[in-house]
Amino acid sequence: MTRFAFIAGETGAWRIASVTGVSGEPLVAAARLAVVPAAVAPATAAAWRLDGVVSNVRYATRAEMGELRAQHAPLNRPQARRAALIPIKKSDSWWALAQDERRAIFEEQSHHTALGLKYLPQIARQLYHCRDIDQPFDFLTWFEYAPEHAAAFEELVAGLRATQEWRYVEREIDLRLESDLAQV
Amino acid sequence: MTRFAFIAGETGAWRIASVTGVSGEPLVAAARLAVVPAAVAPATAAAWRLDGVVSNVRYATRAEMGELRAQHAPLNRPQARRAALIPIKKSDSWWALAQDERRAIFEEQSHHTALGLKYLPQIARQLYHCRDIDQPFDFLTWFEYAPEHAAAFEELVAGLRATQEWRYVEREIDLRLESDLAQV
Repeated sequence: MTRFAFIAGETGAWRIASVTGVSGEPLVAAARLAVVPAAVAPATAAAWRLDGVVSNVRYATRAEMGELRAQHAPLNRPQARRAALIPIKKSDSWWALAQDERRAIFEEQSHHTALGLKYLPQIARQLYHCRDIDQPFDFLTWFEYAPEHAAAFEELVAGLRATQEWRYVEREIDLRLESDLAQV
Repeated sequence: MTRFAFIAGETGAWRIASVTGVSGEPLVAAARLAVVPAAVAPATAAAWRLDGVVSNVRYATRAEMGELRAQHAPLNRPQARRAALIPIKKSDSWWALAQDERRAIFEEQSHHTALGLKYLPQIARQLYHCRDIDQPFDFLTWFEYAPEHAAAFEELVAGLRATQEWRYVEREIDLRLESDLAQV
């Protein structure tokens, strides 16, 4: 699996516009964020570094995967100059649930996939798993969108936070980022 | 998640009785196997080392978890002087399946959990995940049993290999181990 490093410090393609501690222990602020394959991540000092791996789907059915693919939005679109990185950690009680119980909360009650689909292809999204790789969070979710879809993104995030699933989130940070590349 | 290291070499509590390449690239033979938390694994030379993490269940329902708990057999029972370590890697086509498709093959078609339950508490079992931690295998399964249950263990392994699920296994090694601790 490809492991990526999210490195906050003085360099990186993304300017960190804000770092908000939503719940639990916060993360310190920094000027910029670099997102690189962990294999080539520099060993230099950073404010912090979070790693995650792209892995197989854990809840999506074949029908849902088909819908997600039909609406797929790639990362790195030139107009997507806004991004958000939302690291979350779920409680032990979440992880002690059986697969059918987690699936029921995730989709049948919280409509997690259906909610994300509503905002495709405007809001691109990539999930990174980190619970099994000795990291402080369970997931890093990365979103990319054009500035004109900022309000839609707020709606999506608010929608997710209002779900039953989010009652199991015990630590959450919300980083907002801006790219100046397309403005050059 | 607790990460464990399986280290083959000259030391370790388990004597390696055999190393059989079932499919794909084999592993070299060695004299002994040590199983230790990765955090305290020695940095010394070894024939090979495989790491895995104990993680949350991926397919078991609440009902199945209840049955598994009711029949639970712990590791390190003094009479369990035989062990097996079976590292497997599944194909890309397995990992590209949706959650409901993998679940259907795993349990409704292959009866993976039901098969393991039949041999509890005689055959203790612990699964270690390694697909997301940059390892050559996807899973390491560890079994422990008393010598008088060796035939039952062969039946269990043969049963698993005959399933639909096993058609997705592209690399598999079968190590058999013996402990002499209880004979001291």
